[in-house]
Amino acid sequence: MQTPWEYRYAHRTQKMGSSVIRELLKFTEQPDIISFAGGLPAPDVFPIKEFREACNEVLEHQGAQALQYGTTEGYRPLREMISRHNARFNVEVTADNIMITSGSQQALDFLGRVFINRGDYIVVESPTYLGALQAWNAYGAQYISVPSDEHGMIVEKLEEALRIGPKFIYVLPNFQNPSGSTMSLERRKRLIVLADQYGVPIVEDDPYGQLRYDGDHIPSVATLDSRYRNETNGEYTGNVIYLSTFSKLLSPGLRLAWVIAPSEVIRKLVMTKQAADLHTSSFNQFVAYEVAKGGFLDEHVKVIRATYKERRDVMLEMMDEMFPPEVRWTKPLGGMFLWGVMPEHIDAAEVLKVALERKVAFVPGAAFHSNGNGKNTMRLNFSFSSPDVIREGITRLGLTLKEAVKNGHK
Amino acid sequence: MQTPWEYRYAHRTQKMGSSVIRELLKFTEQPDIISFAGGLPAPDVFPIKEFREACNEVLEHQGAQALQYGTTEGYRPLREMISRHNARFNVEVTADNIMITSGSQQALDFLGRVFINRGDYIVVESPTYLGALQAWNAYGAQYISVPSDEHGMIVEKLEEALRIGPKFIYVLPNFQNPSGSTMSLERRKRLIVLADQYGVPIVEDDPYGQLRYDGDHIPSVATLDSRYRNETNGEYTGNVIYLSTFSKLLSPGLRLAWVIAPSEVIRKLVMTKQAADLHTSSFNQFVAYEVAKGGFLDEHVKVIRATYKERRDVMLEMMDEMFPPEVRWTKPLGGMFLWGVMPEHIDAAEVLKVALERKVAFVPGAAFHSNGNGKNTMRLNFSFSSPDVIREGITRLGLTLKEAVKNGHK
Repeated sequence: MQTPWEYRYAHRTQKMGSSVIRELLKFTEQPDIISFAGGLPAPDVFPIKEFREACNEVLEHQGAQALQYGTTEGYRPLREMISRHNARFNVEVTADNIMITSGSQQALDFLGRVFINRGDYIVVESPTYLGALQAWNAYGAQYISVPSDEHGMIVEKLEEALRIGPKFIYVLPNFQNPSGSTMSLERRKRLIVLADQYGVPIVEDDPYGQLRYDGDHIPSVATLDSRYRNETNGEYTGNVIYLSTFSKLLSPGLRLAWVIAPSEVIRKLVMTKQAADLHTSSFNQFVAYEVAKGGFLDEHVKVIRATYKERRDVMLEMMDEMFPPEVRWTKPLGGMFLWGVMPEHIDAAEVLKVALERKVAFVPGAAFHSNGNGKNTMRLNFSFSSPDVIREGITRLGLTLKEAVKNGHK
Repeated sequence: MQTPWEYRYAHRTQKMGSSVIRELLKFTEQPDIISFAGGLPAPDVFPIKEFREACNEVLEHQGAQALQYGTTEGYRPLREMISRHNARFNVEVTADNIMITSGSQQALDFLGRVFINRGDYIVVESPTYLGALQAWNAYGAQYISVPSDEHGMIVEKLEEALRIGPKFIYVLPNFQNPSGSTMSLERRKRLIVLADQYGVPIVEDDPYGQLRYDGDHIPSVATLDSRYRNETNGEYTGNVIYLSTFSKLLSPGLRLAWVIAPSEVIRKLVMTKQAADLHTSSFNQFVAYEVAKGGFLDEHVKVIRATYKERRDVMLEMMDEMFPPEVRWTKPLGGMFLWGVMPEHIDAAEVLKVALERKVAFVPGAAFHSNGNGKNTMRLNFSFSSPDVIREGITRLGLTLKEAVKNGHK
């Protein structure tokens, strides 16, 4: 007889739905659609020549190790390189404070697994990264949304949230996904003090930190927390768990990211990863190390910045020209996304349907809210499409939005 | 103030311990230890030349796709290749019945996440694969151990277990890890009938299926289940979820494995993977496909078989010569492991301590039992060490065992 699988699933699976973003990414596979929906880096900036050289070098001299099982923590030279990189920013981090993950999404999943009991509250920005909500929904998290503006989380509203007793605070301070906003230095400092006062840890997600196109670098929350504590005992003991990734600087197809945390948290994450997938691809770690070890990324990031800055500028210019005055949007200082807000009565999901008829796509913003808000918002990616494609796509989207505003489209 | 992390962890994490196997793998990093403890393939058989050619080919012609984000299901040509391979064995499987995972450990983890509610019973062989127990402990599984002998799970004892109402049955029919035993054709058929009769699905874990050194191939449980059902509706609808991997045929460092299941189960697994790590490395999938697509693995597996068969034979000969008669062991027809049973009063963990002084390592067998049994058992890996190293290692281990038997070592 047929197996009735649907009655075999665990509770957590029965409620699980497919990701809005991943379903939408399917549109990007249709070649005639201009998609601002994905979060893809520009393939133009992948350092393919350097990858070839690195693959050859690694396979010629370290093939037996690179193709073998590796340690769960990750390839030590790669972790040491990351720790040296952090030393530039005055954070004392050793290889024992670092674990390599298969993309930042895996780090988010593991943090959920290590910390979240069903019903635990997590403080998030509103809007916040959809992938984090997806990862933590699987562990039964509940969310306290703190509103944000163009300078990030409105920290004045944070204290109220902290009195609820959340497990941790989740922030994306640089060029946030989805909003593109950057948390100001003052707010970062206030966040650290409040978190310390209430004894609540911070998870800082920083995939785009190096992709700044205007203005000066603001120290990470982890760096500021270290300064605030002024502890110099040779290893990282801060209140911040910091995530970053090679996906935006090298290649997302390698699935390489890292977590920085106090060593006792790293030990828990390592045990979690042992049971979850043993370790991240040794080969990819060897290759990424080989590409990056001579300082290549310092040069390469300049190419990425120049490419994405141009695309952001083209998108903003075109929006000025083509979008109706009733729509507002952020002007991000870096990263890959900007955020549009339509009049409240307009439903972005309905606008998307019309936009798809015009062969242009974006992500409706509601999915980035843990509280059902944001139906009139949209996320636009400016890193993937070339300037000409951006011009054409924003023209199409502008026409769609003008119609929507005129028709009072819901 | 310092963050008291230990009070922030979720319930599931507080109980979590490090893997015995992974901790033991640390011994293999000491160059003077002869380790039969790990489960490592021989680096001698890694097809390094073919990997170099494949990396160059992929980066030259498909760099932009191979380094980009990919679909959660996995690279379609790779999934189609796996489905064609299965067609040889008369299992109708399409690409929609296949998901690529980051190693089989990830497939085990995802099956736990999709199916296991806290307290659910899982039927396992005794002994069984430690990595499966680790993965499923995280979801609060309980185990029903069915004893096994040299022909695999003793199916006569299975019916009693099925009446408890388990979520699924977990078997490793070929050259089992850890015992090295192979389930007979008759038992496979009886397993399928009993599972169908009680409506309980089977998870078949088959990492070593192609690594047979003696005797004839026995069809997989998935194949036999398909024949039993005799359904030919164009896609796989069996009662068996089948796992296999490229780790033993190509390279474990790539972290590439796959799950075969009815498409509705694959859909749940895909949603799980979306939230867990988005997708498995595109680059590695492109490279593995490039290496394998021309039929290379059919030739390469012959090299692996010849290498491992010699090592198994050397280990068995040396054990005959060096081990005391009170110790018994399996004579596996394939795979990478054999299994030793000492007199009941001898504790393998204590023997290991002495063995490590003699610079030889193995895995004490208790960890492979879900019920605390097997303290007098041990797993030996014969694939990693060269024949000369095996001779020396078994000599050292033989001396240790003779002492243990003589001293009534506990």
